[in-house]
Amino acid sequence: MKNSFGQSVIATLFGESHGPAVGIVLDGLAPGIDVSEDEIAWYLSRRRPSSQLDTPRREPDDFQILSGVFNGKTTGTPLCISIPNVNVRSSDYEYGLARPSHADYSAFCKFHGYEDYRGSGHFSGRITAALVAAGGILIPVLEKLGVTIGTHILQCGEARDRSFDDVAADVAMLHESSFPTLGSEAREAICAEIAKAREDSDSVGGITQSAICGLSAGVGEPWFDSLESMLSHAIFSIGAVKGIEFGSGFELAAMRGSEANDALRVEDGRIITETNRNGGINGGISNGMPIVFQCAVKPTASIAKPQSTVDFTRMENATIEIQGRHDPAIVRRICPVIDSVAALVICDALAMRFGTDYLAKGGSR
Amino acid sequence: MKNSFGQSVIATLFGESHGPAVGIVLDGLAPGIDVSEDEIAWYLSRRRPSSQLDTPRREPDDFQILSGVFNGKTTGTPLCISIPNVNVRSSDYEYGLARPSHADYSAFCKFHGYEDYRGSGHFSGRITAALVAAGGILIPVLEKLGVTIGTHILQCGEARDRSFDDVAADVAMLHESSFPTLGSEAREAICAEIAKAREDSDSVGGITQSAICGLSAGVGEPWFDSLESMLSHAIFSIGAVKGIEFGSGFELAAMRGSEANDALRVEDGRIITETNRNGGINGGISNGMPIVFQCAVKPTASIAKPQSTVDFTRMENATIEIQGRHDPAIVRRICPVIDSVAALVICDALAMRFGTDYLAKGGSR
Amino acid sequence: MKNSFGQSVIATLFGESHGPAVGIVLDGLAPGIDVSEDEIAWYLSRRRPSSQLDTPRREPDDFQILSGVFNGKTTGTPLCISIPNVNVRSSDYEYGLARPSHADYSAFCKFHGYEDYRGSGHFSGRITAALVAAGGILIPVLEKLGVTIGTHILQCGEARDRSFDDVAADVAMLHESSFPTLGSEAREAICAEIAKAREDSDSVGGITQSAICGLSAGVGEPWFDSLESMLSHAIFSIGAVKGIEFGSGFELAAMRGSEANDALRVEDGRIITETNRNGGINGGISNGMPIVFQCAVKPTASIAKPQSTVDFTRMENATIEIQGRHDPAIVRRICPVIDSVAALVICDALAMRFGTDYLAKGGSR
Amino acid sequence: MKNSFGQSVIATLFGESHGPAVGIVLDGLAPGIDVSEDEIAWYLSRRRPSSQLDTPRREPDDFQILSGVFNGKTTGTPLCISIPNVNVRSSDYEYGLARPSHADYSAFCKFHGYEDYRGSGHFSGRITAALVAAGGILIPVLEKLGVTIGTHILQCGEARDRSFDDVAADVAMLHESSFPTLGSEAREAICAEIAKAREDSDSVGGITQSAICGLSAGVGEPWFDSLESMLSHAIFSIGAVKGIEFGSGFELAAMRGSEANDALRVEDGRIITETNRNGGINGGISNGMPIVFQCAVKPTASIAKPQSTVDFTRMENATIEIQGRHDPAIVRRICPVIDSVAALVICDALAMRFGTDYLAKGGSR
Repeated sequence: MKNSFGQSVIATLFGESHGPAVGIVLDGLAPGIDVSEDEIAWYLSRRRPSSQLDTPRREPDDFQILSGVFNGKTTGTPLCISIPNVNVRSSDYEYGLARPSHADYSAFCKFHGYEDYRGSGHFSGRITAALVAAGGILIPVLEKLGVTIGTHILQCGEARDRSFDDVAADVAMLHESSFPTLGSEAREAICAEIAKAREDSDSVGGITQSAICGLSAGVGEPWFDSLESMLSHAIFSIGAVKGIEFGSGFELAAMRGSEANDALRVEDGRIITETNRNGGINGGISNGMPIVFQCAVKPTASIAKPQSTVDFTRMENATIEIQGRHDPAIVRRICPVIDSVAALVICDALAMRFGTDYLAKGGSR
Repeated sequence: MKNSFGQSVIATLFGESHGPAVGIVLDGLAPGIDVSEDEIAWYLSRRRPSSQLDTPRREPDDFQILSGVFNGKTTGTPLCISIPNVNVRSSDYEYGLARPSHADYSAFCKFHGYEDYRGSGHFSGRITAALVAAGGILIPVLEKLGVTIGTHILQCGEARDRSFDDVAADVAMLHESSFPTLGSEAREAICAEIAKAREDSDSVGGITQSAICGLSAGVGEPWFDSLESMLSHAIFSIGAVKGIEFGSGFELAAMRGSEANDALRVEDGRIITETNRNGGINGGISNGMPIVFQCAVKPTASIAKPQSTVDFTRMENATIEIQGRHDPAIVRRICPVIDSVAALVICDALAMRFGTDYLAKGGSR
Repeated sequence: MKNSFGQSVIATLFGESHGPAVGIVLDGLAPGIDVSEDEIAWYLSRRRPSSQLDTPRREPDDFQILSGVFNGKTTGTPLCISIPNVNVRSSDYEYGLARPSHADYSAFCKFHGYEDYRGSGHFSGRITAALVAAGGILIPVLEKLGVTIGTHILQCGEARDRSFDDVAADVAMLHESSFPTLGSEAREAICAEIAKAREDSDSVGGITQSAICGLSAGVGEPWFDSLESMLSHAIFSIGAVKGIEFGSGFELAAMRGSEANDALRVEDGRIITETNRNGGINGGISNGMPIVFQCAVKPTASIAKPQSTVDFTRMENATIEIQGRHDPAIVRRICPVIDSVAALVICDALAMRFGTDYLAKGGSR
Repeated sequence: MKNSFGQSVIATLFGESHGPAVGIVLDGLAPGIDVSEDEIAWYLSRRRPSSQLDTPRREPDDFQILSGVFNGKTTGTPLCISIPNVNVRSSDYEYGLARPSHADYSAFCKFHGYEDYRGSGHFSGRITAALVAAGGILIPVLEKLGVTIGTHILQCGEARDRSFDDVAADVAMLHESSFPTLGSEAREAICAEIAKAREDSDSVGGITQSAICGLSAGVGEPWFDSLESMLSHAIFSIGAVKGIEFGSGFELAAMRGSEANDALRVEDGRIITETNRNGGINGGISNGMPIVFQCAVKPTASIAKPQSTVDFTRMENATIEIQGRHDPAIVRRICPVIDSVAALVICDALAMRFGTDYLAKGGSR
């Protein structure tokens, strides 16, 4: 599958940072889904570098829907979105000098020097614009079905946001918010961490926390295609993510079963759990509680400080000082990307479970 | 795909805990691979409950190779291993009372009451015996190709083992060891944690750490089929795993780029990194360093203590006291399962990259 | 995928003719489907050599359901059927001498001599017993959903049966019949052709005609996964099939559009076509008419007459006289295999379209 | 998978006849493959309507490579080709009136009226331009590996071309020829058939014959992914194809085994068959002989003559006289499409067998 993901709703990515365009083909979407260019543009705007905390590279993210939409609705045939690259400064890049913790050297080993290295090529965060554009279609689809998705920065450097509390309300609030934190103090502390990193010609990592609310119980598979499997598979394709945990995740290691187990209870005619340490998933299958997961996001690999590295074309040690325009932290801009990828996974799972037409069921048909 | 995983080497699992058999079909194996029943039995013995720290259920794990092997070597056609279930005590299980943090309720929502609930049915850890049997073929295949895999308990409750240091040597040592820790003190501390949990009619969680050594640089894909994606996809199918991180994982959140980046260096004619905070993967592709990852393993959900729950067939609150035979900790027995699943992922990735015959290349052909 | 087929309902085959067993894993079946061992046995009996027209090899086809069935119904987890091989006479086979039009030489090129050559190994028609056993579950599933499938011998040597006329009635009749022809004269003529071939130590080919009735309009995909694509993909895995055509197929070559086009008409509130030269499929998608297709079946490759061939281990010309027990014609025994394979394709297409639970909808749930 | 095909080299189609563009994403191509825009243009020109025998719709087929090519060579990342639609006359089409033997009604049943019906939308032969553009990359790749592909019109109406004789030479000749027949008399007769059909406001069907030369023995799978399965799967996605047969195909029905079997012989140190009635495939696996197959191509469904049909939006009988611009025969323009689709199948099979880098092996690397 490589650059494709999904079984019933299938996304295929293409594009390089400094090539003509990046884009995505969404195949398997139900016919009759509303496609709003404004909504796509709005989601793209959430990913766009917009403040002095982000990279100075400014992309208008003008996109074109090449296929699959007719009279403002999906046709049910592949929907291709192309986003031309316009603000390109390739002279910033030189081939052979491996940027530490970037894919330069591993890509060379895989692609034998044929890779388009300019601006990280196909490894660029730029490709996530195509994912977010897809999110601009898929997230509204899920909302009509009662499923909402939201991601906030739980941690950045030493600064921490609170965890989800009333999850559905928190997710709704995130949707309205221009900066992805739950608390306003956290926002300030996180911005300060990022600003400090920038001042130091450095970058900083973080942790995101995401929730999927309203997903019915019974979605996912016991083996291999567990919900955790599908979500992690898709999310680990985002280069900066180096860890994922569901519910209490790594904290479960130090717990006893009697602490970790989520007691069940009947409430208002439905079954809920008192706690949600399993993150809404048991045996790979949704249990009706919010799906909650955290992702570890590494610091931007591109930093201006001098670093020890190699020139892999000459097999020589070298020093690199990375020029170019870079984010001091990825953790803010990654939030809408994670939302979009999660939406893709859930749309695919729902279409597999309930049939290809299901995704249009929430609409006005 | 559901109960299958892989693109060139494909594993399909089947079986329920109290049905006639559990098993696995391995498709896409190169012809000419040595298959040793002794080696399979040895790997199965590593997963088997063997001490008073584990469940008292004793399975001989007699297996039968139904197809795909001729004169002691793979034929290149599907290899089916069946492991009959013999030591079955179904009377321990009652339907409707959801065991907290088990799949009982989510499975009911998915399978509408038709699921074989006895002994957790298809959700049972018993199914991992089939994975480990496959590991008994795949791990030796990789060893002949110079790729070794090992997993140890990094943490259990409050007890901690040291991290990998000289990774290849540590992995070799683990292969010889009867208990999966790197340090002998850690072993004692971990056994004490488990014993204490048992005494308390409770269970305890843990963290495993795994390494894949000797994998050449250039394996994996930039988008969707990154090495992290494929490994996490496969490993999250093991029910007790609730988190995975590569390299420094969640610790990267508090780091600066200047700390987190792995400097590169030419050493003895090959390119290495000074540190390995990326866990041997950049941009989804192996960089030639050991692949290192940690998994969060939740405490065994089955505990003897009384717990609040529901009877989902009656939609009533209830209390459950779980009888039956259970491990007070999964973290020891999960180690060979993770090794086997990782071997499956790497075999598949190598066969996709280098062709279907590649896996037999390490042999005497 | 190799030995697997399907996207939502997935079949995985395993086994060699003279190994311990052949079998199939069916994954993705809805929970709650009735599984009748009698019905499976009945379908197997239709494929079994039963007269002097067939191979003298007699297999009781005792099968065992290893997983996925509980209380007589599918659980929704993988259903594995194993059929042990008992009546094995391996001494009939010698390695290296390529039987003309068999897979001996092509298999050697693929499997490098590791293939289990005894009784054609994994290429044996014996493996189709596993497909037919699956048909014993899937065909009744479809019947409950109003979809019936039937295959008859349209031609064998020079003898011809009539084409489908009242398709649904013909298919119902075939279900009751012990020999797959529509006309009784055709039956005699075909039996005579087969008997004659046997007397001449020779074999004879044929054409089958199949129909799938009651499939709703709107199933299939425009590109790549057209209904013709999926049916032909699955059916061409049966070794003896060398051609497939839908509707009027190759006869369309000599037609004008004005003859070939199927005029439409409203009848009893539904849309039908006057003729069915497109075989019920337009643009890859079912149009509500019966799906009708013909398969070319080559003469059994194993004949007792001396034939020119090579010993590929010695790279020498040679002559072969094939001993062993063989069918003088495959065309009768292939009919239930085609039905079963077609049922698999339709079950998969319906589950993709309408969701995984759909296949159990026809039942008493 | 739907609009995608392939396992290692994967093609994804998108586009509607009257939308902004049609296109294809090729994923999994080895890095370092030469991509010549001239060559792509040349292949597109072979599919383009060029004479009075074809549709008067004239598309310049200007294409743009959006990704995956750098310095004239594949990067190894997804290669997207977009072909804008420019010569569009949507007023020729009216919704609701089903054109007989077109996908109008079946598409309505699948897409519920949301389909882009203009110019047949996603069902249009226009989409095959994207396939042929891909062929402009893949066919040269195979040629460098010694594999050649060619298709000619074997029959059109009553006119017949001769069958392949010296297959490799015939294929080479077809590559040079501007009209796809082996004999020049056949060309005239076929052109006359087409011209006659046009004069009669009618259309005419045909049969193509294709060969793949130079494919090594041992490619393909015994079950489900036989070479016949993969080729037929891909080729049946071309809407006009209604039948496919390999080697002697349907003629085998009337043959005895003694006639049908291909005797083997050692010649010049390699094993060949005397005849090629199995079309180069035994047991689903190539045997080293040319792969030969014939496709039944139905007459163009769009004819100017009045036809009985229905208005499916009103559920009324109706009469249709199709305006617009149409080919009186598809059989000429389909030849390069079949070549391209066959090239895709073979590239995928080779990359699965020999690894992802294999396709660049024939180049100058």
